[in-house]
Amino acid sequence: MGRKNLIVGQSGGPTAVINCSLYGVVSESRRHKDEIEHIYGMVNGIEGFLAGNLLDFDEVLPGTMAEGLKITPAAYLGSCRYKLPDSLEDPVYPQLFKRFEELNIGYFFYVGGNDSMDTTSKLSRYAAKIGSDVRVLGLPKTIDNDLVLTDHTPGYGSAARYVAETVREIVLDASVYHKNSVTVLEIMGRHAGWLTAASALARKFEGDNPVLIYLPETDFDPEDFIAKVQECQKKNPTVVVCVSEGIHDKDGKFICEYGTTVGTDSFGHKMLEKCSDQLVKMIRERLGIKARAVEFNVSQRCSAAMMSGADQKDTVRSGIFGVRSILQGETGKMVSFVRKETADGSCYMDCALEDVNLICNQEKAVPREWINADGTDVGPEFIRYAAPLIQGIVEIPQGDDGLPAFVYRK
Amino acid sequence: MGRKNLIVGQSGGPTAVINCSLYGVVSESRRHKDEIEHIYGMVNGIEGFLAGNLLDFDEVLPGTMAEGLKITPAAYLGSCRYKLPDSLEDPVYPQLFKRFEELNIGYFFYVGGNDSMDTTSKLSRYAAKIGSDVRVLGLPKTIDNDLVLTDHTPGYGSAARYVAETVREIVLDASVYHKNSVTVLEIMGRHAGWLTAASALARKFEGDNPVLIYLPETDFDPEDFIAKVQECQKKNPTVVVCVSEGIHDKDGKFICEYGTTVGTDSFGHKMLEKCSDQLVKMIRERLGIKARAVEFNVSQRCSAAMMSGADQKDTVRSGIFGVRSILQGETGKMVSFVRKETADGSCYMDCALEDVNLICNQEKAVPREWINADGTDVGPEFIRYAAPLIQGIVEIPQGDDGLPAFVYRK
Repeated sequence: MGRKNLIVGQSGGPTAVINCSLYGVVSESRRHKDEIEHIYGMVNGIEGFLAGNLLDFDEVLPGTMAEGLKITPAAYLGSCRYKLPDSLEDPVYPQLFKRFEELNIGYFFYVGGNDSMDTTSKLSRYAAKIGSDVRVLGLPKTIDNDLVLTDHTPGYGSAARYVAETVREIVLDASVYHKNSVTVLEIMGRHAGWLTAASALARKFEGDNPVLIYLPETDFDPEDFIAKVQECQKKNPTVVVCVSEGIHDKDGKFICEYGTTVGTDSFGHKMLEKCSDQLVKMIRERLGIKARAVEFNVSQRCSAAMMSGADQKDTVRSGIFGVRSILQGETGKMVSFVRKETADGSCYMDCALEDVNLICNQEKAVPREWINADGTDVGPEFIRYAAPLIQGIVEIPQGDDGLPAFVYRK
Repeated sequence: MGRKNLIVGQSGGPTAVINCSLYGVVSESRRHKDEIEHIYGMVNGIEGFLAGNLLDFDEVLPGTMAEGLKITPAAYLGSCRYKLPDSLEDPVYPQLFKRFEELNIGYFFYVGGNDSMDTTSKLSRYAAKIGSDVRVLGLPKTIDNDLVLTDHTPGYGSAARYVAETVREIVLDASVYHKNSVTVLEIMGRHAGWLTAASALARKFEGDNPVLIYLPETDFDPEDFIAKVQECQKKNPTVVVCVSEGIHDKDGKFICEYGTTVGTDSFGHKMLEKCSDQLVKMIRERLGIKARAVEFNVSQRCSAAMMSGADQKDTVRSGIFGVRSILQGETGKMVSFVRKETADGSCYMDCALEDVNLICNQEKAVPREWINADGTDVGPEFIRYAAPLIQGIVEIPQGDDGLPAFVYRK
């Protein structure tokens, strides 16, 4: 189809390695100068693109400068939360494809989670509908690890490593006083418990904290929780519990909603509380012991310091594989990972392609059989699954100020 | 005085490098076998010691195993929050010294902050009073950096590095959407703003976030805050503000107390809120823009992943210097750091000793002249002071599970 330009955008929430897929796309595209002329980036996703915001990678990150993307968290290109209309009759589609034509775009990449795969699906279907030769591929990215048809999603390994390592540190911190105490750690994940489950990797020995782990895949029973905490405290005065933000009771009511009836603030707003705050209140009231809630903040999705080497490497590969595939004519698909076991019991990830239409409106939960019967822990199947994804430290180059030398968009 | 035994305890809150002073004490003591026979550790500080809990380092961490202390956060020996009685006539003193005699203790080290220096002061004064030859030295440790008569305190550099690096990451995270937003980061420090001030190190370029930094050393004016946020947002839609948990208004009322009148929870408890939650409410109400609060959790004091190399090295040295000093007859003092400037403008830390009685009931605040006139930022004096303390990455050895190989007390 002659020499064309490539465009890539990022969408949805930040992750530690979202710029690694970008790096894969940019570096591999530069190896195909005969087919790809310019490499454009949409600034703030498809929403920014519609507003005319784009950049040329040869201008902003020429040559080896692009390497900095591999260690820079968040989203170098900026992101958006913009959903394309469901009807392909909407005028935004011809508008977009007219712009693609003006820019001589032949290859379109979108990096993101569920919503971004929805965008990928719609654009590729519209291209087919109008007979456009623009090829459209999706690159997965979400710390939630909830995309189907892939072993895991880029970003999950680093977030899981953050959770495992930070929980291990906090367990040490919580254990310094020889007094009864309960620490409730609240981890991201409204519908899927993949990230909270990673806290099981923090355990160093049999019976180590966290002694209780609750995922949104099962119903949370407050009475049973109190009994379990009491039981655990008989063995170790320091009890650390990890919960997904999205845990709910058997009636489907979120635990974080237990507190919303307590009142309004001085401006008349409904009080917002965390599920960990609710659990801490229950423990204090029912057991009369010291308890505190720690909410894992946005660092769990954007910490470069705890980036997983495996996640970084595989995510770069997903971008490289995407470029090779799109040049071979692929469109309407998402790059996925397929786990291959080696003879010595270790594993590696192969890249593959899956129909993006089968991915965009699905959600993958932690299999019920990987969770114990009473919903208070994950089993060895999960550990076997997740352990390879958090391996390896990434050395982050430091600037003159002694802090990570991230790359910035000017 | 013949061959004696040495005992060391840890007290107060955890830090990333508290076990580095312990390593310094243990490793240096082992080089003086002619003077020091056993190296004991109090388990859970002086409180645990009184209950008979101690260990022998040659049993629990023989040979090179002690090296693991250098990368293990929190408090290997466990900690306590126990204050010795003010009256030296209290029966606990003869009880303690009788135990010292039974154990043939000649050298006593206590690692901690203000309260631990109080313990060091009392024990050394009691020893002088009864003519005991037990020598008592304090080793500083606190992320708050609020001890007088020392350039800085072990633990501060690593906590400051955690703050600087994490703020830099969160600023990237907060900037991905091109929308007006305010992120309020709440950092530890009830009376001293040293740790919050370290957020200024996160800035990468002129005008970079955090654009506003509030310390407890000045009075916080809510009206001025709202005006400043609005002003900053004209330049950059993403506004990141860093505040100490202890900020207060001109009447001395803590900002976190602004919300405590809003009601009680379903158990009748007074609602506890953070000052960052109060500020977020103000912003939403007064400016109607998206705002969120992020409380830096206990990781800021116990993260090994962001340990400062300078902090680690200097803290080990403080323990080594302490052992050498105590063997030379020193008692009733605390090891301190003295900053020495080199001809090329860089600096290094020399160890010294200061009278522990002059330290134990004092608090060092950030000098007012290092804070700008309207109390919304720190100046270049602070940057010059703090930058050397956060330098250097520490490579944390990984275990078979791919996570930090911390040492554990059995």
